Amino acid sequence: MTKQFETIALIGIGLIGSSLAREIKDKGLASTVVVSSRSPDTLKRAEQLGLGDRYTLSAADAVKDADLVIVSVPVGASGAVAEAIAPHLKRGAIVTDVGSTKGSVIAQMKPHMPSHVHFIPGHPIAGTEYSGPDAGFVGLFKGRWCILTPLPDTDADAKAKLRVFWETLGSMVDDMDPEHHDKVLAIVSHLPHIIAYNIVGTADDLETVTESEVIKYSASGFRDFTRLAASDPTMWRDVCLHNKDAILEMLARFSEDLAYLQRAIRWGDGDKLFDLFTRTRAIRRSIVQAGQDTDMADFGRHAMDQK
Amino acid sequence: MTKQFETIALIGIGLIGSSLAREIKDKGLASTVVVSSRSPDTLKRAEQLGLGDRYTLSAADAVKDADLVIVSVPVGASGAVAEAIAPHLKRGAIVTDVGSTKGSVIAQMKPHMPSHVHFIPGHPIAGTEYSGPDAGFVGLFKGRWCILTPLPDTDADAKAKLRVFWETLGSMVDDMDPEHHDKVLAIVSHLPHIIAYNIVGTADDLETVTESEVIKYSASGFRDFTRLAASDPTMWRDVCLHNKDAILEMLARFSEDLAYLQRAIRWGDGDKLFDLFTRTRAIRRSIVQAGQDTDMADFGRHAMDQK
Repeated sequence: MTKQFETIALIGIGLIGSSLAREIKDKGLASTVVVSSRSPDTLKRAEQLGLGDRYTLSAADAVKDADLVIVSVPVGASGAVAEAIAPHLKRGAIVTDVGSTKGSVIAQMKPHMPSHVHFIPGHPIAGTEYSGPDAGFVGLFKGRWCILTPLPDTDADAKAKLRVFWETLGSMVDDMDPEHHDKVLAIVSHLPHIIAYNIVGTADDLETVTESEVIKYSASGFRDFTRLAASDPTMWRDVCLHNKDAILEMLARFSEDLAYLQRAIRWGDGDKLFDLFTRTRAIRRSIVQAGQDTDMADFGRHAMDQK
Repeated sequence: MTKQFETIALIGIGLIGSSLAREIKDKGLASTVVVSSRSPDTLKRAEQLGLGDRYTLSAADAVKDADLVIVSVPVGASGAVAEAIAPHLKRGAIVTDVGSTKGSVIAQMKPHMPSHVHFIPGHPIAGTEYSGPDAGFVGLFKGRWCILTPLPDTDADAKAKLRVFWETLGSMVDDMDPEHHDKVLAIVSHLPHIIAYNIVGTADDLETVTESEVIKYSASGFRDFTRLAASDPTMWRDVCLHNKDAILEMLARFSEDLAYLQRAIRWGDGDKLFDLFTRTRAIRRSIVQAGQDTDMADFGRHAMDQK
């Protein structure tokens, strides 16, 4: 494959940033990859792992020759990064990000972006519960969707170039309005994480059931939630703070539905329970059919349990 | 291995019953396995799969020569099964079950049990989202806990025999008070399933986000919940109806904690969010260390995604 970009700058080198670094090297998508982190330890680890060609603690220094800049930091840090890199961006550079909220990232970054660069916010729908430069891997984006939320004045050629970049990593690419993105992600990602964190917290606080019991018997359902609840706390604090309105709306819907379900349990309304428990099976089937999850029982964990 | 039982009767041949059938054959634990189901289709399928040595639609007929009777039916059907089999149970037989609630099963079955049998309620903490005779497999119980809730008059030898049976399948066995079992399971299993069913229902009902969007972007968290929400509706309706008090108690705790979390989001209290999101990580680590889940990222799904 011919190189799509001469120089790519990665601002932030956690799970997403380091997966991108590995993909770019694996597929030969750039001549030079510049890796930047504001943490000396993280940067050192990235260098040990050989994730880039040049390493710097300064985001401003990282972007100066870059044709493509990918910001992969907790969304609350987007504004500070934009401010730092803005004066150093090359004419015609594409600046994108991978943040889980888009309205807030645009509000933070857009005001700093000079008119001679192409700012195209993005969000690859991919991840694991692990974080940091060691957590990344080739294949993270394969078969997953990447949402771009272009702005009204976004250059079509620049957007097409960014789309090809993600497609080269195996992703399917969708365009979406930023506000709609934030609503969609509130229900498919933010609410599930918040609920998972919450139930694990509730279990941890009980006086009547010990932590040891929760751990021993977790294979009966609870352990599924602990995976999401082991996700990066900084990232998820920022998501909660930066997609507040959509999250509160989804939480209100969830709580209302839960009150209805709770009432059906209290009054012994088996038909209501059976109806809901039947309806939800169909969605699982659709997700498996769409290639967005494995059809192996228990996520295939039993095969691994036996090893 | 010498045969532990001459004849074992399996009442119900779904995920658990058919896993037991396969284990008993695999490990040679009985001379004769009698399979019983009240559904002609299920019984026929069990016969096609060769799960037993004798097949009958009548639970009463199934138990007449059995040294061990294992009832694996939705907990709401326990009373009817107990009433049907009681007059036909062999002197000295061990009668156990695998139900997810214990107080209710004991209340339903105990009054019917003749004094010449050993009734020892049990609950293997194992399962998948699939159900029916095709869903069972050898290895389901390996490394998982099995809880026995013996009654005050339970014979020690009979209990020891049942314990050896489960240990032979690779399980660890714990004794527990039935009431405490129901509290523990309410938090580690029943609440997670109810919450999963609820969030999938909420997503399905939204007007602002389409079902197609929920499916496409589900890898960002939502898909994890759909696995539990694809579990057998009859089984889970019965669990909700038969462990009502403990479930309502746990739901109240969960909702209270969620209101606190919601308030932290509304008021932008990042420190509270960060504290909770950090604390929950430790529980995940303990579960992995206890051998109750894989430490592979994303439950190892990425390895399967690549295939």
